[in-house]
Amino acid sequence: MTEQCLFCGIVSGAVPSTKVAEDDTTFAFMDIHPGSDGHLLVIPKRHSQDLLDIPTNDLAAVTLTAQRLAKTVVNELGADGVNLLNCCGAEAWQTVFHFHLHVIPRYTNAAKDRLTLPWTPGVRGDNSTITSLGERIYRAAN
Amino acid sequence: MTEQCLFCGIVSGAVPSTKVAEDDTTFAFMDIHPGSDGHLLVIPKRHSQDLLDIPTNDLAAVTLTAQRLAKTVVNELGADGVNLLNCCGAEAWQTVFHFHLHVIPRYTNAAKDRLTLPWTPGVRGDNSTITSLGERIYRAAN
Repeated sequence: MTEQCLFCGIVSGAVPSTKVAEDDTTFAFMDIHPGSDGHLLVIPKRHSQDLLDIPTNDLAAVTLTAQRLAKTVVNELGADGVNLLNCCGAEAWQTVFHFHLHVIPRYTNAAKDRLTLPWTPGVRGDNSTITSLGERIYRAAN
Repeated sequence: MTEQCLFCGIVSGAVPSTKVAEDDTTFAFMDIHPGSDGHLLVIPKRHSQDLLDIPTNDLAAVTLTAQRLAKTVVNELGADGVNLLNCCGAEAWQTVFHFHLHVIPRYTNAAKDRLTLPWTPGVRGDNSTITSLGERIYRAAN
């Protein structure tokens, strides 16, 4: 736990939240700035800043809790779909620097769902750019 | 493998792709409709439709490959941040029905980055709605 971290405060109970699940490794609670009805966050209890520094066992546990809760919002809230979103870094819209995975139920009913696509899908990228970037990633990652 | 699945075709090599990583369980390749420079997808080799039906070991493996490649795009491409996104169901923008996790590098340089926020952050939701939805999820999930 870090002294100044809002989400560490939620895990400890010092900061109130609407908890939806908890186990030894993970904690899940409702997002107070929801993009849709039932929007919730899953976090590791142990503090990590973001995707780059979270230990692999915490990351796997958070993801499995998120999957479990995705099934719950479909079955219990009647969601028509679900998005998982992680924001790593301020440039990627991260605002609280304790790793969190958004579980965002989606609905055909627009009154419950205020999301818009974050990019224009179906726009074919430039082939040579994609290939050369891919080759750089492949070489660096393998 | 399912006969008609585009991503099963990519795993088998029947459909060409720019591969960026592969191990026993997962396969990663460049998205041809990128939201930003270096946008890639991580999938399980074994066919699953979506987040609701992917086995937990495949889901964990995909997530850890995505983390590894997120570090790569930061280190190799100089990304300033990364988003992970999963779309589960047509209502959540899923278009290929083989589970995939988007790894989307983010940049302060707008020429490399065409994403916009999928919802308006910082808009406080209605407290009683959030609490009652949270209570329903808690009861159903625990």
